[in-house]
Amino acid sequence: MVDSILDEAEKICTLVLLPINASGDAEGCSFDLSQTPPVKTPDGFVQAYQQFSENGWFGLCGSAHFGAMGLPKSVGVMFEEMLYATNCSFSLYLGLTVGVSQALLNHASDTLKDKYLPKLYSGEYSGSMCLTEPHAGTNLGSIRTKAVPVKKDNEGGSDGFKITGNKIFITAGEHDLSKNIIHLVLARIEGEPAGNKGISLFLVSKFNEDKNGVLLDSINNVFCTNIEQKMGIKASSTCALSFENAFGVLIGEKNKGLQAMFTMMNYERLSIAVQGLGLGDIAWQNAYAYAKEREQGNTPYGNNLLAFADVRRMLKIQEVLAQGARCFAIFISHKLDQYKDNNDESINTQVALLTPVLKAFLTDRGFESTVLAQQVYGGHGYIKETGAEQYVRDARIAQIYEGTNGVQALDFLGRKIAFDNASSLNEFVVELRDEMALWELDSEFCQYVQLLDVSFSDVLITTDTLLENKKELDFTINAVCCDYLDSFGYLMYAYFFLKMVGELDSNKHQSEFIKTKKQNTHFYFQKVFTRLQTHLQNVKNGSSSLIL
Amino acid sequence: MVDSILDEAEKICTLVLLPINASGDAEGCSFDLSQTPPVKTPDGFVQAYQQFSENGWFGLCGSAHFGAMGLPKSVGVMFEEMLYATNCSFSLYLGLTVGVSQALLNHASDTLKDKYLPKLYSGEYSGSMCLTEPHAGTNLGSIRTKAVPVKKDNEGGSDGFKITGNKIFITAGEHDLSKNIIHLVLARIEGEPAGNKGISLFLVSKFNEDKNGVLLDSINNVFCTNIEQKMGIKASSTCALSFENAFGVLIGEKNKGLQAMFTMMNYERLSIAVQGLGLGDIAWQNAYAYAKEREQGNTPYGNNLLAFADVRRMLKIQEVLAQGARCFAIFISHKLDQYKDNNDESINTQVALLTPVLKAFLTDRGFESTVLAQQVYGGHGYIKETGAEQYVRDARIAQIYEGTNGVQALDFLGRKIAFDNASSLNEFVVELRDEMALWELDSEFCQYVQLLDVSFSDVLITTDTLLENKKELDFTINAVCCDYLDSFGYLMYAYFFLKMVGELDSNKHQSEFIKTKKQNTHFYFQKVFTRLQTHLQNVKNGSSSLIL
Repeated sequence: MVDSILDEAEKICTLVLLPINASGDAEGCSFDLSQTPPVKTPDGFVQAYQQFSENGWFGLCGSAHFGAMGLPKSVGVMFEEMLYATNCSFSLYLGLTVGVSQALLNHASDTLKDKYLPKLYSGEYSGSMCLTEPHAGTNLGSIRTKAVPVKKDNEGGSDGFKITGNKIFITAGEHDLSKNIIHLVLARIEGEPAGNKGISLFLVSKFNEDKNGVLLDSINNVFCTNIEQKMGIKASSTCALSFENAFGVLIGEKNKGLQAMFTMMNYERLSIAVQGLGLGDIAWQNAYAYAKEREQGNTPYGNNLLAFADVRRMLKIQEVLAQGARCFAIFISHKLDQYKDNNDESINTQVALLTPVLKAFLTDRGFESTVLAQQVYGGHGYIKETGAEQYVRDARIAQIYEGTNGVQALDFLGRKIAFDNASSLNEFVVELRDEMALWELDSEFCQYVQLLDVSFSDVLITTDTLLENKKELDFTINAVCCDYLDSFGYLMYAYFFLKMVGELDSNKHQSEFIKTKKQNTHFYFQKVFTRLQTHLQNVKNGSSSLIL
Repeated sequence: MVDSILDEAEKICTLVLLPINASGDAEGCSFDLSQTPPVKTPDGFVQAYQQFSENGWFGLCGSAHFGAMGLPKSVGVMFEEMLYATNCSFSLYLGLTVGVSQALLNHASDTLKDKYLPKLYSGEYSGSMCLTEPHAGTNLGSIRTKAVPVKKDNEGGSDGFKITGNKIFITAGEHDLSKNIIHLVLARIEGEPAGNKGISLFLVSKFNEDKNGVLLDSINNVFCTNIEQKMGIKASSTCALSFENAFGVLIGEKNKGLQAMFTMMNYERLSIAVQGLGLGDIAWQNAYAYAKEREQGNTPYGNNLLAFADVRRMLKIQEVLAQGARCFAIFISHKLDQYKDNNDESINTQVALLTPVLKAFLTDRGFESTVLAQQVYGGHGYIKETGAEQYVRDARIAQIYEGTNGVQALDFLGRKIAFDNASSLNEFVVELRDEMALWELDSEFCQYVQLLDVSFSDVLITTDTLLENKKELDFTINAVCCDYLDSFGYLMYAYFFLKMVGELDSNKHQSEFIKTKKQNTHFYFQKVFTRLQTHLQNVKNGSSSLIL
């Protein structure tokens, strides 16, 4: 079943999304207040959205109880990789809708779930998340958007709020793709505490409804005042929204808005990590095809660009980075599925620990891959025609949004590791080592298992030293967290490559596929894993050279 | 005098070029065959060009014998850094003109020099270099443009050629800035050998002249057929040119066209290296200003972005990369000046050895800096408004053109080092070590001098091992050349930081300037020089994991 779903996913992504990727970038979204709606997506996006909606792709992993297909996230991740690879901008409209439905499923009342989930799963309604304000990016505790309680009798007496404030950088905040847009909005109820503790989450519908839930023509008081001109993802509308006494309803508990957002954050970060994977992978595929095709004189090693070892090196880096990323994304999504099934908190802790690594590492490596792919083309990679430069621009945002990669690193080392004195980290590594001890690998790979084991020890000892030295702990942790996260990322990929070799060997396969995996494992350890020493040395060197 | 020249340079760059940098990017060059000329530069470029022309900036380092100012290249480099920082696209029109005049000065007949140099030095004429063809990028030996000898009596009986062929990626190949454009064109004279040995260099003037050298309205048979849509440097016209029996004259000896280009290449590569420096530096300056200004809640370390050690880390990396780059660029330009003065071939050999490192390392690090600067802004770095994303796009091309950085690395290790069995490399390192032995540094820096010395040994031993193992030498050299070049680049920056500390110490200065230099030296060694171990390990790991 999964195979046939993925075959269908490949078809619709390749046939519907890929053809409007470059044209969508060239045209971009347009903004014109004299039009309704004021934001127009590029040619072909309305039709593509329609097709994804009709074929049920919005509800792939949603709750079957509300009409979705209920498939595991580990399947959803493979679908998402295809989406991001074939049309990053389009993926975001779908991704935000899935994210909003996920939040409602976890935090909304049954009434609201009944009302909205079927429409979000069908794509009839789409979603947006309204967090950032002009003065408040990462620091959400300082947001100024206010909510004032009102009774609204024609809504069946349900409690409501009037929301007022300005939000920026709102992906899919306005567009012409769906009948209605469901905004999830962070705001502070009048009189509630300042900072993180006084923030609540609200649902604000773009259009008003009558008491039977039928959409009215009248728009709620949410206005798109502008869209951003960006480096990339130009077909994705990035909106400034003005809420002017817009009617909204509370989602979850009062003052628990940030927590409600955080429970979804693992899913959102996973999705953005997959953006890095998808773009890195398609950039590699195209660069490889170009290198094979481009003639470059006769050499003893061939007459195309692949004859050049440096070109092969660049392509091989991209290939192993995509393979490591794919393993990592599926590894985490599988844990998310397990947690959903059994509510085992130890799994949830692992997901929370690893997700910032996943998000930052996959998007950093994804960007690196798109840049390397562009380099393979030479001058042809710098012009629009080949598409290589669009992947670079589209991949760049993934390192920034959904929490910058610096924020991910601080979350990883400063919150997830320092918080419990590395105990969940240690438990996770014990689990991996237990597994590693059972591997029966060919002798050529045993050296790598030993290296990985020694490297884990090095990282754990470094972590202990770091946490012991409490003097200026915050500053030092922030100073080294990015190098620390990178160290751990390279360890994880190393683990995945050996795990693949181990599982393939134990199945005694002898195909081209296995041969390539083994070669890639050698390449990864000899040319990429070597980066670990630099990052770990930087961690060990602390922050003394940085204090001004 | 140099101070006052640089003050003036700063003024004109800041007042004239900076204001049209973002607008030039947004507008780009336009192409319209119904207009004359068909290529229009963005608003303000014509006036800016005029001002640079009137103030003599085109002739800053040109030959005084032909009306230029004759200043050393080491001054020119500082001017170029300002140009690239304030308006990368504009710089290229000036840079190409300087490059063409340099080529004519070295290779053209006295008649041609008299005729063209004064007009190029004044900016009345501009220049372009026509090398690449659609099927031939790096592999210039395979170009198809042909030259057929003709006598042209009305040119005073001088031998001429009819040139026919298509050139692409021609920077400044057509535009509306100058009265005339002097194209230097690589072509093969009919009947001459295939490959590199049969290529000659020609001068082709955009407009015809009468026998007194007066420009006629009639255009030579050179036609711009299109301009490229690019990722960045959008205000620089990148042209496809069609030569259709265009009249040209031979520059230098027949069949020595590639050699003639190569003698200029050190200057051209230096200039592109400075593009990396200039863009990296201005991106850093802006990001630093933003971080200082952007409030982000109260922390024990302040209330702006600089309170975050990770933000400081990113900014510090950019700062030390720019300082290392500036030293390297001036170091090389000084050697170019020395060679010009004394024709000492050992200096020329050093320049030839180091120039590929300079070009690739400064442009790779420049791109890295622009990406880091963009990251400092968070989401605001991804939108057009702040300008941070333009620097990323403009810096990207420097890693590709004037020979991709992979080609630079192959030139460095495969040609310059393998060719003489590393003897010029060894001589150069001896020279540096002799100097290092004389340094009298504070004890806190002696550890770094030792580390640098040990690292030089490591690189030299690795080089010997590499060259000894002749088996599949070409493939292995190509496989490791980029890591090898990076290793050497980090060594050079390390040398420059210690040299600065040494010279400042010996002058017994005690200023804020010196304090910062010393801090930066610590930072460089503790957080950036650590990359050497990864690159060198990758070199040692050879190519066995890469052979398919």
